[in-house]
Amino acid sequence: MENFEFYSPTCFVFGKDTENRAGEYVKRFGGTKVLIHYGGGSVVRSGLLDRVKASLDRESIPYVELGGVKPNPRSGLVYEGIDLCRKENVDFILAVGGGSTIDSSKAIAAGVVYDGDFWDFYQGKRIEKALSVGTILTIAAAGSEGSPDTVITKEEGMFKRGASGDAVRPKFSILNPALTQTLPAYQTAAGITDIMAHLYERYLTNSEEVEVTDRLIEGLLLTMAHEGPRVIADPNNYEARANIMWAGMVAHNNTCGVGRSQDWLSHTIEHELSALYDCAHGAGLAVTMPAVFTYELSHNVMRFAQAAVRIWGCQMDFAHPEVTAKAGIEAFRNFLISIGMPKNFEELGAKEEDIPKLVDVLCHGDGRDGTISGFITLKEDDCTKIYKMMV
Amino acid sequence: MENFEFYSPTCFVFGKDTENRAGEYVKRFGGTKVLIHYGGGSVVRSGLLDRVKASLDRESIPYVELGGVKPNPRSGLVYEGIDLCRKENVDFILAVGGGSTIDSSKAIAAGVVYDGDFWDFYQGKRIEKALSVGTILTIAAAGSEGSPDTVITKEEGMFKRGASGDAVRPKFSILNPALTQTLPAYQTAAGITDIMAHLYERYLTNSEEVEVTDRLIEGLLLTMAHEGPRVIADPNNYEARANIMWAGMVAHNNTCGVGRSQDWLSHTIEHELSALYDCAHGAGLAVTMPAVFTYELSHNVMRFAQAAVRIWGCQMDFAHPEVTAKAGIEAFRNFLISIGMPKNFEELGAKEEDIPKLVDVLCHGDGRDGTISGFITLKEDDCTKIYKMMV
Repeated sequence: MENFEFYSPTCFVFGKDTENRAGEYVKRFGGTKVLIHYGGGSVVRSGLLDRVKASLDRESIPYVELGGVKPNPRSGLVYEGIDLCRKENVDFILAVGGGSTIDSSKAIAAGVVYDGDFWDFYQGKRIEKALSVGTILTIAAAGSEGSPDTVITKEEGMFKRGASGDAVRPKFSILNPALTQTLPAYQTAAGITDIMAHLYERYLTNSEEVEVTDRLIEGLLLTMAHEGPRVIADPNNYEARANIMWAGMVAHNNTCGVGRSQDWLSHTIEHELSALYDCAHGAGLAVTMPAVFTYELSHNVMRFAQAAVRIWGCQMDFAHPEVTAKAGIEAFRNFLISIGMPKNFEELGAKEEDIPKLVDVLCHGDGRDGTISGFITLKEDDCTKIYKMMV
Repeated sequence: MENFEFYSPTCFVFGKDTENRAGEYVKRFGGTKVLIHYGGGSVVRSGLLDRVKASLDRESIPYVELGGVKPNPRSGLVYEGIDLCRKENVDFILAVGGGSTIDSSKAIAAGVVYDGDFWDFYQGKRIEKALSVGTILTIAAAGSEGSPDTVITKEEGMFKRGASGDAVRPKFSILNPALTQTLPAYQTAAGITDIMAHLYERYLTNSEEVEVTDRLIEGLLLTMAHEGPRVIADPNNYEARANIMWAGMVAHNNTCGVGRSQDWLSHTIEHELSALYDCAHGAGLAVTMPAVFTYELSHNVMRFAQAAVRIWGCQMDFAHPEVTAKAGIEAFRNFLISIGMPKNFEELGAKEEDIPKLVDVLCHGDGRDGTISGFITLKEDDCTKIYKMMV
């Protein structure tokens, strides 16, 4: 096992009606002037925003608001948020929404206390200082509620890039599964796919064995495989929503990612799809993962066979492990289709003729050297083949 | 799923040679004058204490020392530590050792800043304030390195009782699996048993289903079942030690305990054994758990059957689930015996004629009302039967 540091100091407040405690937790973590940051109209229409404001009012904590975060959040709104926070002397950002809103909030939090352009962080500079961030999560998917990560898309060039730093880990995250019950089925399924991708990305490795990490990932994938179809069949199933929401956090705060290298090629390859087509990240992953896994399979057959047996209940073919390995990828693909995810470029809204452009941005955009690396290293030619497998 | 708050802000520093970074982490978490608290001679003889002191010296952090912590740590040394810290203006307690040393350090940390008798905390008062605690763990067992809990034995009456509070959660815990390689096999096995007990106590419940919690516990128990025999066969197997050490932390910081009630009857019943006979807590649990589980089995047969199938690989007897349930308990018992744990009172060094005394202290000691409660509620008569099953 490789040496590591594990640090997840976020206070998670989980369960029914917990959004009404937002003010209490802002106070506990030292906020005195809040920016409430959110996306579209649903948090307004559902009354969630009013409940959050009421809870801040009860603690006499003043606030300003900035809505308008879009899926695959953009740099433009981040600049706007930074200006607003500076003007209003905000010291705490409260994200009300999903991963996009939380990522946008983290970008603002880092940008407010930084002299240069906040985009520096998305070009490799570590985030060392930031305003405090708290979250009220409305979609189980990105895991941003418990992670030090943020992904933003820069409008010029449509570069989608990530940044990271313990300083933007949420001080608290409020997780009420009931808030996710009104999501459209497609978004719920995309969230499930994203969570499972966070687990697979940590599972796929050529490092030496780390039994505890494997077993924790398998446990969470089994949970998702069990609860996913239940919530698609019955969107009001609170227990299934709760299991998925908590699994989504544990999947991405790195509890199940320690002590070895990880993959993340599916995420890297997908990012170009959601940047270009503005599709749901999870939907893009549903199309990307089976292709990437099939391409990677020969580099560690036994690992894919292990996933097939332990997660998808495939019988081990001891004479032909690659048969089992492929059966596991197929079982995962069928699972994703069964919960309503797209299976190819056409269903996703992507176009075969864009592949050269996708590959070019993927391998050369924003300073990359013609390759991308994870569990294996891919050149342009490999990436072209993978995108073609998705058609 | 029941509402819950999950908060585990400890920074875990894991891997080879990490004890040399102790000074760096004391500084990061604000310590300026340290009490190094430890147990017997092994941390001195092995050179560990010298390496820790050297790392504090490198950061120019002054320290005083207090050794002598015994297994099942006593209140007497806690009072001594409190006096020493006050006299020396210590603001950071650095525990170098196993669960006993860490628990003793937490008690001192809470006691120094409290006006009354520190034992108040062990009679139900919540710990709200304490000096900062850091740990360098030398035994994978108690999970105290990531928990808000501490257990101390009061010499008068030999009451063994617990206290709790986020204030005594370690600020950092340094986990170097290599430090556990010199442990005698019996202590290693007792640690493995303690970790598995922490998982079983969280698994045994009559609450509604929480899939994610079940799956995480199963993953950790599978890890222990796989790595335990490997480390007993080869004490220098670093990878096995590493898996066990990390599983031991995750088993007890409540990652796998959220959203429902837990049991803890085995711990409660065992505490009287280690208090009276000064046996290793894990060894006491090895004798206690199979008896308690057999007694509890009829109250939730399907839960014990699930453990049997998912953890121990038993075939499900769908016509007679209780057969499978019992086979799972037997498989666990055989596992414990196979790693060298005692199987009954005689091997543990306990005496049948003490049972009335054990039951009396268990059910009436320190203000209890004649019953103890967990997954089920037990009266004196039940406790007598359970102790007799262990003979």
